[in-house]
Amino acid sequence: MYFAELIGIALFAATGVLAVSRRGLDVIGAVMLGLVTALGGGTLRDLLMRYPIFWFENLDYFWAAVVGGLVTFFATTMFQNAQRSLLYLDALGAALFTIAAANKVLVDPRLSATLAVMLGVLTGIGGGLLRDVLAGRQTLLMSRDIYATPILIGCTMFVLLRELAPGFPYAGITSAAVIFTLRALAIWFHLQMPAWLVK
Amino acid sequence: MYFAELIGIALFAATGVLAVSRRGLDVIGAVMLGLVTALGGGTLRDLLMRYPIFWFENLDYFWAAVVGGLVTFFATTMFQNAQRSLLYLDALGAALFTIAAANKVLVDPRLSATLAVMLGVLTGIGGGLLRDVLAGRQTLLMSRDIYATPILIGCTMFVLLRELAPGFPYAGITSAAVIFTLRALAIWFHLQMPAWLVK
Amino acid sequence: MYFAELIGIALFAATGVLAVSRRGLDVIGAVMLGLVTALGGGTLRDLLMRYPIFWFENLDYFWAAVVGGLVTFFATTMFQNAQRSLLYLDALGAALFTIAAANKVLVDPRLSATLAVMLGVLTGIGGGLLRDVLAGRQTLLMSRDIYATPILIGCTMFVLLRELAPGFPYAGITSAAVIFTLRALAIWFHLQMPAWLVK
Repeated sequence: MYFAELIGIALFAATGVLAVSRRGLDVIGAVMLGLVTALGGGTLRDLLMRYPIFWFENLDYFWAAVVGGLVTFFATTMFQNAQRSLLYLDALGAALFTIAAANKVLVDPRLSATLAVMLGVLTGIGGGLLRDVLAGRQTLLMSRDIYATPILIGCTMFVLLRELAPGFPYAGITSAAVIFTLRALAIWFHLQMPAWLVK
Repeated sequence: MYFAELIGIALFAATGVLAVSRRGLDVIGAVMLGLVTALGGGTLRDLLMRYPIFWFENLDYFWAAVVGGLVTFFATTMFQNAQRSLLYLDALGAALFTIAAANKVLVDPRLSATLAVMLGVLTGIGGGLLRDVLAGRQTLLMSRDIYATPILIGCTMFVLLRELAPGFPYAGITSAAVIFTLRALAIWFHLQMPAWLVK
Repeated sequence: MYFAELIGIALFAATGVLAVSRRGLDVIGAVMLGLVTALGGGTLRDLLMRYPIFWFENLDYFWAAVVGGLVTFFATTMFQNAQRSLLYLDALGAALFTIAAANKVLVDPRLSATLAVMLGVLTGIGGGLLRDVLAGRQTLLMSRDIYATPILIGCTMFVLLRELAPGFPYAGITSAAVIFTLRALAIWFHLQMPAWLVK
């Protein structure tokens, strides 16, 4: 779970840098946006749960974001289509963050399973929303693609698995895979919800 | 006061959904924006006051926002002019939130009456600002209409009434009515402040 | 240090008002944006550090922001080029806020020097980011000018001076001067980072 969070952080830092690539930003500005993207969702979760902020306790998270951002900055020429890579990386980061956050809530006996779903989803989309707002982009929540639904489905599935089958060891990885797969299919095939669910 | 907060939450969730109607969003995305709008102002207040977040303690608030958002989503065809309805609903939600927040601060003996005015106003406008930022709209604070002034007047009035006439039982409803009426008049008649107060 | 924070707050409130001048806002709306700008960065710092919010404890900060905002509102005709004045005032406010925040972290024995740099930078740019997002402007972080680098350099310098030469009494003022001077040079000469550090 710890390792998944570190990878999620590096991925989200990469999306922050990709979101502003080819806009003339210098490396310090781009990496800072990466940091805000990567650490924003979990910071919001910890503030709401009134926990110590996770990257205060362990600077590994901070350095994972710095490395993810720096590597992406100098490797952006490798990303032939930066905006499209951003969508897939965002999907993977959101999947990992959602499950890690839901897990953190479930471990706390004071908090209910419903809250675990809510905070999981909020953490999964929080960092990306912050990135889009700061970069002046339309937030992914506002896109016509299916964005929030896979996160909601996978997070609900994870919480149900942990509540109903606490012995099952692969609840986390299965649910994260469900989120990423559904979101990736939506991006790839430009899936839309049925018309009566769209306004 | 509790009931007023639930209504305010459902109304604010409705404004979140209206703000993105006709933009091709699916029901999950729209309701999530409604949730952020509805719960954002009070969450900010509780974070600043270092209180437990109100919807952690009582999931009624969460479900009120979900219901308000869902009903609005499927009834948007009823709103002939969604953007105009949004302005009035926002005015009503802001009126209820402002008074509920100011009341919460006044009840805490550690916090001063000045803070009650400040946090009341912040809570009243916080959810709407969050909605506008996430939906990529110009924030209502930036509109040329009179937006913040009625909230400031009504909130100051409420705090003064509670401090100077603690026996008066209708301080809350009167002050909320003042906020809504002033704001509704400003919308209806396109009122502007006197020229020397505008730049 | 206390006095520097008050001045930083008044300056940041002024930048909030300048950012929306000539856009038809009334005095209440403009001063509120000034307040959010001025108090936003430090509020974020205190939330993350789980300290009481600084302006709850001492309303001087609030009044400094109100005065700074009001004076700027009625004196905007003096600012021949409001957008350019905004850049320099923002640089000065960010310099003072960064150092004050880093100092607050260093005083806390639970928190590391690395965190002091991080929270210093975050506080220095937080209020301005909030202002730009609420005013619907491109955030300064996204501009092609050198914005974050001087803040990072000055803040690192301050923390190093305080750690390695704790007896040196001018660490704060020197570091703030470094931030302001580097940023002012970048604005004045339209400095850009070397091409290999820009994407």
